[in-house]
Amino acid sequence: MIPSFHIDPVSRDLAPALQARLDSRTKPQGSLGRLEALALQAGLIQRTLAPEVHQARLAVFAGDHGAARAGISAFPQEVTVQMVHNFLTGGAAINVLARQHALALSIVDCGMAGEASVAAGPGLEFIRARQGAGTASYLETPAMPAALRDAALAEGARLVHGWHAAGCNAIAFGEMGIGNTSSASLLTHFITGAPLDQVTGRGTGHDDAGLARKRALLEQAAGRVSGGARPDALTALAEFGGFEIATLTGALLAAAECRMLIVVDGFIVTSALLVAHAVAPAVLDYCVFAHGSAEPGHRAQLTHLGAEPLLDLGLRLGEGTGAALAFPLIRSALACLNEMAGFADAGVSEAGA
Amino acid sequence: MIPSFHIDPVSRDLAPALQARLDSRTKPQGSLGRLEALALQAGLIQRTLAPEVHQARLAVFAGDHGAARAGISAFPQEVTVQMVHNFLTGGAAINVLARQHALALSIVDCGMAGEASVAAGPGLEFIRARQGAGTASYLETPAMPAALRDAALAEGARLVHGWHAAGCNAIAFGEMGIGNTSSASLLTHFITGAPLDQVTGRGTGHDDAGLARKRALLEQAAGRVSGGARPDALTALAEFGGFEIATLTGALLAAAECRMLIVVDGFIVTSALLVAHAVAPAVLDYCVFAHGSAEPGHRAQLTHLGAEPLLDLGLRLGEGTGAALAFPLIRSALACLNEMAGFADAGVSEAGA
Repeated sequence: MIPSFHIDPVSRDLAPALQARLDSRTKPQGSLGRLEALALQAGLIQRTLAPEVHQARLAVFAGDHGAARAGISAFPQEVTVQMVHNFLTGGAAINVLARQHALALSIVDCGMAGEASVAAGPGLEFIRARQGAGTASYLETPAMPAALRDAALAEGARLVHGWHAAGCNAIAFGEMGIGNTSSASLLTHFITGAPLDQVTGRGTGHDDAGLARKRALLEQAAGRVSGGARPDALTALAEFGGFEIATLTGALLAAAECRMLIVVDGFIVTSALLVAHAVAPAVLDYCVFAHGSAEPGHRAQLTHLGAEPLLDLGLRLGEGTGAALAFPLIRSALACLNEMAGFADAGVSEAGA
Repeated sequence: MIPSFHIDPVSRDLAPALQARLDSRTKPQGSLGRLEALALQAGLIQRTLAPEVHQARLAVFAGDHGAARAGISAFPQEVTVQMVHNFLTGGAAINVLARQHALALSIVDCGMAGEASVAAGPGLEFIRARQGAGTASYLETPAMPAALRDAALAEGARLVHGWHAAGCNAIAFGEMGIGNTSSASLLTHFITGAPLDQVTGRGTGHDDAGLARKRALLEQAAGRVSGGARPDALTALAEFGGFEIATLTGALLAAAECRMLIVVDGFIVTSALLVAHAVAPAVLDYCVFAHGSAEPGHRAQLTHLGAEPLLDLGLRLGEGTGAALAFPLIRSALACLNEMAGFADAGVSEAGA
């Protein structure tokens, strides 16, 4: 059964008061640009004039893709488990960034082909939430039956509810899964309607021949399901999505249900958001878009969602690295709102005075 | 006498070794995008495979402009001293951001119309380096005689040499000065050749009438000096520059001389960099461009220098706020290079393996 989610659209009732508080800080009105919009959004989400980030967390969802064995990725499938080991021993980019930016880090096995066999290092949480040993190959059959998709949605929601209950009010999501840019391309194609070749890129590093092979395989996969009509988003998720993407979808919906500030990473996480948005459009009210990925399909996703990311650094690593890098900007936005002096208190004249 | 600066261009000798170290980290090659370029640049500047930021500092240079009394700014001239008081008591945006991002903060009076009359709060350094009680109005005469320009250049250099001697190897500059977007527009026009009206913007918040008045006044000022030929950059600096811009110019040149990583803020600081670059083009090798300002002339400056900023957040506050916001990205870049595991150590297969 598809889990249900109850997401309130964010009310703008407090917007005038938040804007007045921003405008009374000692700076020309609007001069902090997008930081002001961030502070306003956080205040509306948290229903307060003094929004704060508490117990910020980054959760990385890992899974394997049956189609990866057909050569859709430049890296072998074993790398998913190897990289999760690297996360658990603290050596990956996301470990470095989570430490630097004071983010609690959870690594979630949503269904890798193999199981992790090293212990989680200090400060890390490892969670088994496996729906299987990787998905089936969508080149031949649906990647997962609807029942496993729904179980993954529910598991993502359960995890987020737990983090929220422990005091987390701002959460970022990342992912790891060899082959998952291919799933994301297929989901993006079917949900946004953008041509498949325009939303298919080099992933972790295909050369021209690898990209051509990937494109041919994805055309084959898309042809398997479409008889003209596009599948709806949840059907597309079961057809092509990895277990990590389905778990992410549930996590995103639950985070909005819990009124958390959601920091959206790049191409893969946004593919899960496309599904979540199709289920409950109000999820967008809770989202901050961290960065524009170098993967070409990300632009089509952002256009579909009407979103503009904070950073544009040419990242294409995944793991949640772009989301981690956006956290200092979010904290800066809130700190300026909460800690700057007002014109009156500081004895500073206002414009045109 | 114009102070002399001895700036070594940054050698690329270490680039292959730095690139190899980046490529051996557990990530697809190049997947950290501009963070990799930042790490490479810092390694070349510091001549090491393991570059680090030490004792990072943000120095805010303040000064007043005689022309401000003619109505070029939306704020009254008194705001310069008022905002410096706000800096000294810790209530401005730059205080908030410097605290958040662990930047030592120095406030430098380069020649405000009035003198600061409050004591510097904890963790703040206040420095008197006054060349006068504001510049003369460039609507009538040069803003400063060449001797004061040269004294300001020397003072900026002296300050930076002191910070460097105390262990600082990465420095950002900010500014405060009612009217200084006008100085920056005039400098940008004369140094880059861009039409004056295209590099003149709303500053801290002119409405349409205010912008029209500002443009008319700047055309008048430009007409005073140009008999067809453009003045050279140092002449333009004396003609139009504020004391804070001249001091900044010396500080930028000295920071490159000391092989410091320089984090360049927005429109005003880049106007000083235009002068520094005209004096010693190699200064650019040491510069990281923090953000693209909402002030329209900044784009012409960046094009002239061939620079692309890290952030684009619509900021137009000054104070060094954009530079402060770029520091976490720089630290993240260096942390990824220095702290990530290598493929071999982590037991992760490489692409195509």
